[in-house]
Amino acid sequence: MNTKFCVLFVVAFLVTWPCQGSHYQVFPLRMKTGYNEQYPTQVSCASWRLGVEANNLVKWKTVPAPCQEHVADYLLGDQYRSDSKTVCREAFLYAKTLNITDRDIFVFDVDETALSNLQYFANHDFGVEEHNATAFKIWVSYGEAFALPETLKLYNKLLDLGIKVVFITERPLDLKDVTVSNLKNVGFYKWEKLIARDPAIYSGKLSNAFKSSERKKLTEEGFRIVGNIGDQWSDIVGEKRGFRTFKLPNPLYYD
Amino acid sequence: MNTKFCVLFVVAFLVTWPCQGSHYQVFPLRMKTGYNEQYPTQVSCASWRLGVEANNLVKWKTVPAPCQEHVADYLLGDQYRSDSKTVCREAFLYAKTLNITDRDIFVFDVDETALSNLQYFANHDFGVEEHNATAFKIWVSYGEAFALPETLKLYNKLLDLGIKVVFITERPLDLKDVTVSNLKNVGFYKWEKLIARDPAIYSGKLSNAFKSSERKKLTEEGFRIVGNIGDQWSDIVGEKRGFRTFKLPNPLYYD
Repeated sequence: MNTKFCVLFVVAFLVTWPCQGSHYQVFPLRMKTGYNEQYPTQVSCASWRLGVEANNLVKWKTVPAPCQEHVADYLLGDQYRSDSKTVCREAFLYAKTLNITDRDIFVFDVDETALSNLQYFANHDFGVEEHNATAFKIWVSYGEAFALPETLKLYNKLLDLGIKVVFITERPLDLKDVTVSNLKNVGFYKWEKLIARDPAIYSGKLSNAFKSSERKKLTEEGFRIVGNIGDQWSDIVGEKRGFRTFKLPNPLYYD
Repeated sequence: MNTKFCVLFVVAFLVTWPCQGSHYQVFPLRMKTGYNEQYPTQVSCASWRLGVEANNLVKWKTVPAPCQEHVADYLLGDQYRSDSKTVCREAFLYAKTLNITDRDIFVFDVDETALSNLQYFANHDFGVEEHNATAFKIWVSYGEAFALPETLKLYNKLLDLGIKVVFITERPLDLKDVTVSNLKNVGFYKWEKLIARDPAIYSGKLSNAFKSSERKKLTEEGFRIVGNIGDQWSDIVGEKRGFRTFKLPNPLYYD
């Protein structure tokens, strides 16, 4: 072995030696220089979406304009379906562990939980456009929303387990009939109750107050809410939320 | 215009006509044929991670083995920093809206909230390896955890607003001294209280019970918990959780 080679060997050993036992040098755990506030859109839009799902971002009005493409890609691609599937699978695995009685119910929200209004939002800039209650109501009145396929699978599995389903929806009473036929047309064929918002009782009340109040009534009638699934945090927090709750993804609107 | 061209024009019109007013054909909103249960790892690992952050997946023991690379990429890349930044920015924007009194506190968790143990987990398969309490305690006793840079920024901004900080940590009392010096060394230089777990009081109690109980004591002492930030859902649910809570990302472990 000549001297040059030997020196090279020793240097190589010294350089690699401190890395033994550690595959990753984590330090420094801080922003890359030069990024500053300018994160790439896909990274910061993914952060925005995660912030929504984990209930860190609240009371937002519209999807940030630079995130329209991100939200569209998310909803039209595999990730939304896979995310929904993961939640529904977890809900089923949980339900399987229960000792079901005939007073046990699972509460389902309707929009973006059982039914998808994605076709409407696809035509309205994927939530970037400010919400137009009139246009949305016209869309709902068509009764053409699709079933969310992963929720439909969960629904069928819960019925098979002997759990009753109760729908509680922000949709007003005058849209109840079309909601019933829309749900039935896409495969949600039976339920214990379908509770729509009665404007005479809940005028001006927040979604969460309405849903908590209706869940409370259900427990007073002797039902036991073993599970509760919705796409909004307002569906699954508050009084009598259920033994376990499940949050489906929805980066389109906050309610 | 010759006949061929005219026919082509009419056909082109008929084909594109149904798409007017709709940029996206959403239907069918269901699994792509052939995918079945076999989602690409990156898609299903992203779903697993989202499920964790939105509190759908609970009581899990380890990161799924096929997701090790996904979790490592997430933590060592831009997304983790950006996700943390989004949460901390939101917490600050919220705090700025408050009318602060000298009894107002913001509760901070320590591990994966103020301090990062990423170097430890990088050497232990990014959460795929079953948690080794002894090895982790030895790591903590070195006092070499880094500051989570986005949390440190938030911490300094809250102090500037006049909000007091209280740390509540699952770390046991015998690691309190090293935790104090670790926090100070990386920039968390003052606090109203630092509450470690007293095994004599909380032996066998769940994290959430310990934290709820300590938060309750704080309010009984006259403090008002205006905010609460942690990386575990057990940090931010339960009694006296705070006026608003913030969930930092952590796909490494469930507590």
